[in-house]
Amino acid sequence: MKLDKLVGERFKEKPADCSVDSHAFMVRGGYVKYVANGIFSSFMPLKRITKKIEQIMREEMDRIDGQEVQFPVVMPASMWQESGRYKSIGKEMARFNDRNNSPLVLGMTHEEAAVHLVREYGQTYAKYPFMIYQIQTKFRDEARPRAGLIRVREFTMKDAYSFHTSQKDLEEYYDKCHKAYERIYARVGLPQVISVASDSGMMGGNISHEFMLLTAIGEDSIAICGECGYKANVEAAECVLDAPKKQKSAALKKVHTPNMHTIEEVCTFLKSETAQSCKAVVYQRNADDSYVVLFIRGDLEVNETKLTKYLGCDIHPAVITEESGIHAGFIGPIGFNAKATVLYDRSLMGMNNLVCGANEDDYHYTGLDMERDVKGAEYHDFAKIVDGGICPVCGKHAITVSRGIEVGNIFQLGTKYTKSMNMTYLDNDGKEQYPIMGCYGIGVGRLAAAIAEAHHDNYGPIWPLSVAPYQVHLCAVRADDADIKAYADKLYEKLQESGIEVIYDDRNVSAGVMFSDADLLGVPYRVIVSPRNMKNGVVEVTARDKSMSKQIAVDCAADEVINLVRTELKKFA
Amino acid sequence: MKLDKLVGERFKEKPADCSVDSHAFMVRGGYVKYVANGIFSSFMPLKRITKKIEQIMREEMDRIDGQEVQFPVVMPASMWQESGRYKSIGKEMARFNDRNNSPLVLGMTHEEAAVHLVREYGQTYAKYPFMIYQIQTKFRDEARPRAGLIRVREFTMKDAYSFHTSQKDLEEYYDKCHKAYERIYARVGLPQVISVASDSGMMGGNISHEFMLLTAIGEDSIAICGECGYKANVEAAECVLDAPKKQKSAALKKVHTPNMHTIEEVCTFLKSETAQSCKAVVYQRNADDSYVVLFIRGDLEVNETKLTKYLGCDIHPAVITEESGIHAGFIGPIGFNAKATVLYDRSLMGMNNLVCGANEDDYHYTGLDMERDVKGAEYHDFAKIVDGGICPVCGKHAITVSRGIEVGNIFQLGTKYTKSMNMTYLDNDGKEQYPIMGCYGIGVGRLAAAIAEAHHDNYGPIWPLSVAPYQVHLCAVRADDADIKAYADKLYEKLQESGIEVIYDDRNVSAGVMFSDADLLGVPYRVIVSPRNMKNGVVEVTARDKSMSKQIAVDCAADEVINLVRTELKKFA
Repeated sequence: MKLDKLVGERFKEKPADCSVDSHAFMVRGGYVKYVANGIFSSFMPLKRITKKIEQIMREEMDRIDGQEVQFPVVMPASMWQESGRYKSIGKEMARFNDRNNSPLVLGMTHEEAAVHLVREYGQTYAKYPFMIYQIQTKFRDEARPRAGLIRVREFTMKDAYSFHTSQKDLEEYYDKCHKAYERIYARVGLPQVISVASDSGMMGGNISHEFMLLTAIGEDSIAICGECGYKANVEAAECVLDAPKKQKSAALKKVHTPNMHTIEEVCTFLKSETAQSCKAVVYQRNADDSYVVLFIRGDLEVNETKLTKYLGCDIHPAVITEESGIHAGFIGPIGFNAKATVLYDRSLMGMNNLVCGANEDDYHYTGLDMERDVKGAEYHDFAKIVDGGICPVCGKHAITVSRGIEVGNIFQLGTKYTKSMNMTYLDNDGKEQYPIMGCYGIGVGRLAAAIAEAHHDNYGPIWPLSVAPYQVHLCAVRADDADIKAYADKLYEKLQESGIEVIYDDRNVSAGVMFSDADLLGVPYRVIVSPRNMKNGVVEVTARDKSMSKQIAVDCAADEVINLVRTELKKFA
Repeated sequence: MKLDKLVGERFKEKPADCSVDSHAFMVRGGYVKYVANGIFSSFMPLKRITKKIEQIMREEMDRIDGQEVQFPVVMPASMWQESGRYKSIGKEMARFNDRNNSPLVLGMTHEEAAVHLVREYGQTYAKYPFMIYQIQTKFRDEARPRAGLIRVREFTMKDAYSFHTSQKDLEEYYDKCHKAYERIYARVGLPQVISVASDSGMMGGNISHEFMLLTAIGEDSIAICGECGYKANVEAAECVLDAPKKQKSAALKKVHTPNMHTIEEVCTFLKSETAQSCKAVVYQRNADDSYVVLFIRGDLEVNETKLTKYLGCDIHPAVITEESGIHAGFIGPIGFNAKATVLYDRSLMGMNNLVCGANEDDYHYTGLDMERDVKGAEYHDFAKIVDGGICPVCGKHAITVSRGIEVGNIFQLGTKYTKSMNMTYLDNDGKEQYPIMGCYGIGVGRLAAAIAEAHHDNYGPIWPLSVAPYQVHLCAVRADDADIKAYADKLYEKLQESGIEVIYDDRNVSAGVMFSDADLLGVPYRVIVSPRNMKNGVVEVTARDKSMSKQIAVDCAADEVINLVRTELKKFA
């Protein structure tokens, strides 16, 4: 491909709306064009990258006996009504009616479609296990698309679904798929991706893992134990706390705390630690706006994922009205009598001498003793694990919390979908059973963006050879010089004939323009034919990541470059 | 791949809802599963076929300098408002609002997205010409999906868009693309596909061609001249008629024709030829239900495509109300005074002694002389070309009308989209110009179905080697015999190692079951390992199309099969 024919513009200025590097480079390098919030078109360089990523995914899915199929983008609402998700999923699912007024949805995941496809096939145990997968466009009406290709509304995903006759068989396959995912990340140049325990969210099921690229721009928080290697999404991590220090219980005492609405204000005023307070966090259920009041130790934060899971419904931070009878800023467990579901975080269990609200404007209590004053409270884990906290596995104070981009997830789904959609098989004994499912997803565009986040410098992405839009960027500096042009043309031809993917820049532009364009395209190897090099009878070969730079005699340049690409490519196989 | 692991069911009975063979075989052979009206999921065999078709398309598009890009499935309505098609396209376009109430549409074609992608890139003449293409899912809310994969609502399409600075350059590229399409059809095993002149419909532009596979189950009608080779979709074909025979004009005479509403009834009653009558066909405009009355020679049919194009709006057959003042069944050009647009087909020009309605219940005229009685009528071509009719190119009575499946189309779009979306470039003289566009589309699934229509017998499809789901179908008849199994396993391994795509049937089922499954999968070469063959030291190799059947010594079976596949495959390159 000649660079001057490559459709797409490259430019220097960082666009104002690009908050992350991968996004800025994708816009500046002519990879994507913004179409609408969270919706992009791709130019050829990105399309070449995503096709290579998809091919790697395909090979690894085929290796674990996956069968590539295709589900529709547009599905009838009835299919999602069967599973119950037509109702349980909210605004993220795009819905519309067709010309006959039949309700349709856009697929954001395909568990329903997978069960629908194999429901008749999988009627006897002998057909199991099997796995089907697709690489297909999905649409999820995200509230807040962000960071370019990291969080979009329309995306291409590789999603796989496995079906089993026993939990043990699912677990074995789940491990196989975990390893296949590790191979995928390694092959696209991200061996550093880690897997962490995660919450299953709207997918259902119990055990699930997310694959994370740790990076400051990630939107997920990951708890990692420095001692035992425990790794979990903060959303899914149990918050373990030291047993409360035994203190002599003081008497309960109402104190005047005028206009102090936050627990921090109150504790400062009362000269108490926030860790010695009981704060209230109030939510409302999305469905009916009914209140949920959660009491938690003042220094901790609520893990809303755990709370949502416990409640079994979606919630939002409360808007507290006067009629509710809730005294915002002064809520406490004693004498609370507004209409609400009241919950207690485990962090309060056995605590005493706490500051808490008195359910009366401008008043708090001191000396709260949970055991003595709040009889019959049930405690659950609703708190967020914290940096420096205790590892729920090894029990050591060795948790660090890092940011990460989720670049894949795998779920043990159990029988949630097969049961609700009535998919059964006859087992060895002729008894009817529900198959057990697993599902496994990776977003293609997000993975491409994650690669660019992990591999770039100030001037552009540094694509790993396995996914690079081209393998070699050939620059003919001073292509107006007939000798330069003739030699470079010949080299271009030879490389192409050997199956090397070359982008060839023979424009009459300065070396500076040439190299900054090359930096934006991020091709791993650059071959420079220039008057100075030619005078010395050499061409210059450099790696985009600066790990290598050498001069090769003009006569053997083609062979050496071919050899270099082939040798390096093998490292990603 | 082992057949007993292939997800999908095969069965004998033809499903009641399958009106065409390709549909029946796709359902019976475990290729597709119905999801909703015009929406299907694909099992692996079909996915393998479509991937091969897509790869052939890709290679041919790349060969004519196409750049693969990707446009979104979901697009903002604003993009379609720019081009004007948000209004001009009707219910076929799926529309919905996102969570913020922004109107979105599902892409059914991507001219707007193509202009949007390259509008900034193509600002100077030096960037031209260029072509971008994608292979992507589309949704078109067809009123009447039919015939399995032939007419669906969700489909995958290869759509390409070229941009030029002159009509001449567009025409040259258009020819190139025409040839690329011919190569695509030949490579997928359909060299018999012909191109015909077509109407541009909602795409706009003037010159366009459709590629047609002639078959009785096609939904298009194609006019072909047996003399000069003229070929056109009946929708686009000019209707040329012999000059009317000179007759002496009779006087106009009103006659009583009680309860005769059709021109056939009237002509029979009056002992006149329908070709000597002037019938009225009444439509209403979709937008405001206003009437359009078209007078045409009684033996001809209206070509609604031409009429729509002339009117510049969509129409439907009229519902004639009493208030309209139109006397249904008795409409004629003399004294017609209802509120309507009145049009005259060219077939009436110069005609005399015609029967026509008298605009009065139960009365017709005889002796209508168009020139004498209908002053100032303008005549246009609104009639359908007929079998046996006159070729508009060579003028001979040599037209035959055949049915065909449209398997691709190409359009010279002109500046319709660049103008409406304000895409301009500076020409050589620094003057602002609108680029000229072409667009080029092939539906992948429909092409797969068309291949099955063209290549099948009573037992299943006969896939051409270039697109077949597998190249070799290996049957181990009596796989319970250890020697048979051991030999077949070894052969399977050897073929796979050589890159041959093998589906291997080692089930303990009868040869009958095995072969009928193999017929449904339609793999071009079948290798049969059986006790009888083994006794003779041979395996049997047959072609699915029965063109070949031979016995090969067991020792050289692998090599011969590998050689056969490789040799035959080259014929499709």
